[in-house]
Amino acid sequence: MVSQEQRENAFLWTLDALKSGDIAVPIIARDFSPEDWAFIFEGLPKDLRFELWETLSEDKKSPILAAMRDDSREQLISLLSTQNLEDLALNSSAEHLVEILDVLPNRVAKGIIKKLNPEESGLIEEALNYDDDQLGRYINHDVYTVHKSANVGDLLNELKQESLPPYTDSVLVVDDANHYLGQVDINAIFNSDTTLSLVQLAEFSDRVLAADMDLYDAAEAVKSSGRSMLPVIAKDGRLVGRFTIKDGIDVFQEFYEAQVSHMGRVSDEDLFAPVFTSARRRAVWLGINLVTAFAASIVIGVFDQVVSQVVALAVLMPIVASMGGITGSQTLTLTIRGLATGQLAKSNLRALSNKEVLVAFFNGLLWAIIVAVITSFWFSNPWLSVIIGFSLVLNMLVAAFAGIAIPVFLDRIGIDPALAGSVILTTVTDVVGFFVFLGSASLLLI
Amino acid sequence: MVSQEQRENAFLWTLDALKSGDIAVPIIARDFSPEDWAFIFEGLPKDLRFELWETLSEDKKSPILAAMRDDSREQLISLLSTQNLEDLALNSSAEHLVEILDVLPNRVAKGIIKKLNPEESGLIEEALNYDDDQLGRYINHDVYTVHKSANVGDLLNELKQESLPPYTDSVLVVDDANHYLGQVDINAIFNSDTTLSLVQLAEFSDRVLAADMDLYDAAEAVKSSGRSMLPVIAKDGRLVGRFTIKDGIDVFQEFYEAQVSHMGRVSDEDLFAPVFTSARRRAVWLGINLVTAFAASIVIGVFDQVVSQVVALAVLMPIVASMGGITGSQTLTLTIRGLATGQLAKSNLRALSNKEVLVAFFNGLLWAIIVAVITSFWFSNPWLSVIIGFSLVLNMLVAAFAGIAIPVFLDRIGIDPALAGSVILTTVTDVVGFFVFLGSASLLLI
Repeated sequence: MVSQEQRENAFLWTLDALKSGDIAVPIIARDFSPEDWAFIFEGLPKDLRFELWETLSEDKKSPILAAMRDDSREQLISLLSTQNLEDLALNSSAEHLVEILDVLPNRVAKGIIKKLNPEESGLIEEALNYDDDQLGRYINHDVYTVHKSANVGDLLNELKQESLPPYTDSVLVVDDANHYLGQVDINAIFNSDTTLSLVQLAEFSDRVLAADMDLYDAAEAVKSSGRSMLPVIAKDGRLVGRFTIKDGIDVFQEFYEAQVSHMGRVSDEDLFAPVFTSARRRAVWLGINLVTAFAASIVIGVFDQVVSQVVALAVLMPIVASMGGITGSQTLTLTIRGLATGQLAKSNLRALSNKEVLVAFFNGLLWAIIVAVITSFWFSNPWLSVIIGFSLVLNMLVAAFAGIAIPVFLDRIGIDPALAGSVILTTVTDVVGFFVFLGSASLLLI
Repeated sequence: MVSQEQRENAFLWTLDALKSGDIAVPIIARDFSPEDWAFIFEGLPKDLRFELWETLSEDKKSPILAAMRDDSREQLISLLSTQNLEDLALNSSAEHLVEILDVLPNRVAKGIIKKLNPEESGLIEEALNYDDDQLGRYINHDVYTVHKSANVGDLLNELKQESLPPYTDSVLVVDDANHYLGQVDINAIFNSDTTLSLVQLAEFSDRVLAADMDLYDAAEAVKSSGRSMLPVIAKDGRLVGRFTIKDGIDVFQEFYEAQVSHMGRVSDEDLFAPVFTSARRRAVWLGINLVTAFAASIVIGVFDQVVSQVVALAVLMPIVASMGGITGSQTLTLTIRGLATGQLAKSNLRALSNKEVLVAFFNGLLWAIIVAVITSFWFSNPWLSVIIGFSLVLNMLVAAFAGIAIPVFLDRIGIDPALAGSVILTTVTDVVGFFVFLGSASLLLI
């Protein structure tokens, strides 16, 4: 086991060693887990990644690739020759291979599957039947099964030779056709008579996962089950593998990292993604932002008369828009979380709106007074103070309401609110902010 | 086990049942885990929470409270009488009780500790010795230990009566004074001679955690260890408990949820926090935002002459600021992630800056051309197109640089960049955007 500090130190050594052309790195790092290696790779500038890769032994490579974030994995694989990839595939377990094949050109992937042994290629074809948000795609095949004819004594004898894989708290009972018959808790093995048949001992509880279920739901299920693993069953009742609590952690981390990235208007990308890949992906977010920025400009353009006469309006207008933006984003963040967890439903939506609008009202009043006072000292125009105060309260109320309505609407029409919500919200708070502020000014000041 | 869908349905039933005054809810929900219950409570408007709480049996209450997010737990506890709290404490395990005591007034907490049995209050006092970001505070005491004098046969006999707790893949060997002597893997129990002493079989590996280590690092360690649990050892070598992979998931989820909340400028708060609590917390973020908004206003105020003469500047200036803001936030998001994981260090900082500035340069050029063309159609002023194009490129370059420099600087002086980074960044991109755009306009247009 490597501590976080050791891991970070190892990362720094590796970086220095590679820069100075020293290839002795892997000797230092004999105890590193695939996760530790993935960590090191992801932090290396891309020209050094391939250099380090070449020094690794063949059996380590595919677990490391599988442990990397998608983007980094893709980047590294793009540097490998077809021959390299085939060698990698032949040294790879089925579940690691599925993740690697995902990013290969179709032709290369098919060539590799052909060269595998029938059992391995069968597992892979099964996994590829499922979408990449379904559990079936990520099945862990490292599962301990026993045949239904065995009794406790047989199992105990078998366990003298063979170890249970990590995260195993039950042994799965199957028939000849690999149909799932139930699970035997490790504790039951210890406290049962050796002549007892495992089928009798097995529980066919509802503690199983369907292969076609949503991946994130599977992670939630294994987390709240109190078990280290749950069996995964196909539609026809066959046991296809298991899903462990460690697999669950990976799903949660990927989910949250994507959410954080999207909030920062960036795709979930590699620290050292190629410049053009990165520029192209980010351009999409910038383009969407430009549309919303132009929408705000058009509103200002409508009121260009009053702005040119009272230039203080141009000075103060960003305040109205940005305070609305922050208020809306606070409500939006809470609403998106509630929708994602399922804790926000039709029946408590009104209670939430009431609360959020009230919160926005009190904060609107507070900041309206403060801004109005500062404005009156700055521009000595009481009407300007009234206008900005009124606009602030109104924009913040609209922002709170939009912060609930936008994500709920997006969710209902099947668009992920975490992805599109904040762009739409900013458009609303900018447009409403400028419109109310400049519009009331054009009524009252000229 | 309850699936995500069943959980959400149960939540809706509960909500409806409570609204219609039907108290039969807990009967439907006999199989719910504490996590399931916490989920239901967090989604209820606050007046219904206490009603549901009253219907629960006493033994369920403290695990549910411990499973709730901090803010919801605090809110529910605030509704309970001292007598309620004492009953709760007497039915509570030490690790649950620590989380409950945390939010109680000191006087009440001390009163409760006094009424506990000595063993329980010892555990709690030990846990309270550690800070709330240290592992020692969250120790799981549900650990299976054996005395060093036992052999494999003794253990097997014991396991006939007593079950291993969830997430147990090793049994921990201790001496009379509860000093940690090593761990015996479950697999080793199966394949060893019954007369073999457990001390001989035990590994004293480095797979242990120190009670004073950072909680997040402990979660990373248990995740990458490949084990379901790791023993936690005090400075004097005593075994104080264990940390399971399930505990690790909780730490990760809390960490990421706080990050998402802070990006939305909201504290990690309850969906139905009281209006004034919520308003007060959010006012802090709004106040900070107001300071940055006024900074931008002051810059615009400096150039009020040119704005009143060329009102198109007022129309277009939000575009320059907001494109800079998005560019900066893209780089900031990546940098904060790199700093949080430790994958960004002195030695690869330059490589990242080079890449990010190049990405910003290409996107700056692209969008500068597009915006300049639109501007020339809108305002038929070629100088205005040149000015906005130039300002966009410059502001986006500054934004990319600031997106790295700000979080790195904050990190170095010990401030969490996820908390303060984006506010400072927005100030920079607004101020620089307005200054460059209006400044160059005042040089070239008048």
